Amino acid sequence: MIPQGTVTSPRGFQAGAIYAGIKKPSPDALDLGLLFSEAPCSVTGLFTTNRIKAAPVVISKKHLSNGTAQAVVMNSGCANACTGEQGMSDAMEIAIATAQRLSISPENVLMASTGVIGKILPIELIIGNIPLIKLSPHGGHDLEKAIMTTDTKPKEIAYQTADYIIGGIAKGSGMIHPNMATLLCLLTTDAAVELNFLKFALKEAIDNSLNMISVDGDTSTNDTVFLLSNSLSGSDLITKSSRGAELFQQTLNKVCINLAKNIVRDGEGAKRLIEVSVSSAISIVDARRAARTVISSPLVKSAIYGADPNWGRIIAAVGRSGVDVIESKIDLYIDDIQLVKAGEPLPFDSQKVSLSMNKPEVLINVELNQGKVKATAWGCDLSEEYVTINSHYTT
Amino acid sequence: MIPQGTVTSPRGFQAGAIYAGIKKPSPDALDLGLLFSEAPCSVTGLFTTNRIKAAPVVISKKHLSNGTAQAVVMNSGCANACTGEQGMSDAMEIAIATAQRLSISPENVLMASTGVIGKILPIELIIGNIPLIKLSPHGGHDLEKAIMTTDTKPKEIAYQTADYIIGGIAKGSGMIHPNMATLLCLLTTDAAVELNFLKFALKEAIDNSLNMISVDGDTSTNDTVFLLSNSLSGSDLITKSSRGAELFQQTLNKVCINLAKNIVRDGEGAKRLIEVSVSSAISIVDARRAARTVISSPLVKSAIYGADPNWGRIIAAVGRSGVDVIESKIDLYIDDIQLVKAGEPLPFDSQKVSLSMNKPEVLINVELNQGKVKATAWGCDLSEEYVTINSHYTT
Repeated sequence: MIPQGTVTSPRGFQAGAIYAGIKKPSPDALDLGLLFSEAPCSVTGLFTTNRIKAAPVVISKKHLSNGTAQAVVMNSGCANACTGEQGMSDAMEIAIATAQRLSISPENVLMASTGVIGKILPIELIIGNIPLIKLSPHGGHDLEKAIMTTDTKPKEIAYQTADYIIGGIAKGSGMIHPNMATLLCLLTTDAAVELNFLKFALKEAIDNSLNMISVDGDTSTNDTVFLLSNSLSGSDLITKSSRGAELFQQTLNKVCINLAKNIVRDGEGAKRLIEVSVSSAISIVDARRAARTVISSPLVKSAIYGADPNWGRIIAAVGRSGVDVIESKIDLYIDDIQLVKAGEPLPFDSQKVSLSMNKPEVLINVELNQGKVKATAWGCDLSEEYVTINSHYTT
Repeated sequence: MIPQGTVTSPRGFQAGAIYAGIKKPSPDALDLGLLFSEAPCSVTGLFTTNRIKAAPVVISKKHLSNGTAQAVVMNSGCANACTGEQGMSDAMEIAIATAQRLSISPENVLMASTGVIGKILPIELIIGNIPLIKLSPHGGHDLEKAIMTTDTKPKEIAYQTADYIIGGIAKGSGMIHPNMATLLCLLTTDAAVELNFLKFALKEAIDNSLNMISVDGDTSTNDTVFLLSNSLSGSDLITKSSRGAELFQQTLNKVCINLAKNIVRDGEGAKRLIEVSVSSAISIVDARRAARTVISSPLVKSAIYGADPNWGRIIAAVGRSGVDVIESKIDLYIDDIQLVKAGEPLPFDSQKVSLSMNKPEVLINVELNQGKVKATAWGCDLSEEYVTINSHYTT
């Protein structure tokens, strides 16, 4: 892990941000940012599965289709979603202004927006501010700040191998559900990676990280993950059959899991990180489904908030996950305390379990005892503060 | 509608309840109740889709298989779910004790439990108290009180036609999701109804009522609906092709929709009833799915709690519902105020919309403009109190 690592840690990436006036004003507020690579990048992305897609998602999908990009423009304060024709033309204008600023083609500009849905962008402010953004090889942190909304902490990280670096930033604390990508996530690397393997590796990493977290079960219209590889490290080209493929995948997974855990740790109103492992399942699909159902249950989440050892809610969530579990085979642990053995409740020290649930990280392990596959999901507890934050978001 | 109507309003049904000590003690607490029909009933039931089924669900399913029953024993304070072999033998003991008390066969006893999952029933207290329950033709209200947990108000109703009465009671305020039945619901009628039509009519009524409500998206291990018909009104036998079939269906729907709306109105921590209609859908499956997704969204629910006109969350929920909606066709109304027309946001008076969202019943109408089918779902807002209630349920 690189200290203070971020998306500008890999060679040849620059970034910067500015306050354009999209968000409500506050000291240090940033709401518009740019990432620029000195060389054109191989690029891949994953997007929301929501049938209603924000304008920046529609345009980024189009610009991704040739597998090349050199810049990403991002804003918070307005999602530019459910904005009809106006939203589409605003987004195109932003891509063009960014391309002019950087002397590249608009097709090589990707974009992402987050904030209120259904609000029209203050386009003049954005176009006027794009030329004023200062780019620097240390600008990743400012870019991260420019995409924060209700986030209380930045999420950024970079890991390094002998040959290259992978960096990432992410935004997200509400409208988070494991259904492809999660709000905004930008990943960069100076490794040389063949495009097909880049696509494969991103899907694999996201399936194990951003697709395994939940804050509230809502899926945004703007979910976007980009992975850009500019090859500037000078390392050998990595393909699926390279000796280096596994290391690249592992490093990318570490970056994505770090960001995913930090997203839920900073979930709206969250006091604790919850880690749910479902083990000895028949298939990865089953293991993931069961783990995600437990992590998404508002009843499990409120019980953990209150450190209430109401473990029946965990078993009930496993039962409604759609996985063909066998009640009489299930074992359940909170931390290292076993509560259920082969479907039968064990006597337990309520106070001791409550203490385990009072830690900043609560571990739940469900053993299905049906097969050999394990999956892990991460989420956060549900506190009164989640409701307080979300009941007055636009007012 | 019959004033103070309940499950003992139809002829020949008696009920009663007692405090057996399953719940924590409180003045007027009741936690164990019985329904008895003077004549054997045709009976049908619907149960939780949760793969983990409580012992009373397993036994009731078995006892229903011959289509006949004469009594229902119900308790709150303990769900007898995830209780393994002990739970099954406790439930059988209760069926036998009830049968002895009423001089009927145990196979004609149905049962339902609600409360904490994973706790063993205090079986001695239950068996000791069954003989002490006083039955009366006015006992429906006491039976309803005996199945309440976090409910703050009883849910009971009866409607009458020229020939017969249909009555119902229900319990439920958390772990409520539209996925077959909803916690406990007991329906009685003195109409004579042919068994196949009784089954059909119950499914149809529940699909339009209890399957269209959501409090928190969790599905219980104990969801149970029973419909008992004792024929004591002396009315003609109703079959699917009878002239009276439609009236029976309509009356049963009214009973079930009334109970469903009262369940969500009394949802844990709820301040408002939300009614979501999705109109001009291609199919009933689509219309229901979209309406249920909106009603289940924690972000929509918190916005309504705060009367925050953040309508983008409604459109985002429609978009993630899995229905193939066309953004450029969607119209959206809150109350009678149009906010979106053909996918484009309309300018609106934020204060006026906020006032509409501040009413005890908030109406949301989504027009998909794709077909001719409409469905309605009901839910409640999400307040800090939901979290407070659920974070200390067992402690």
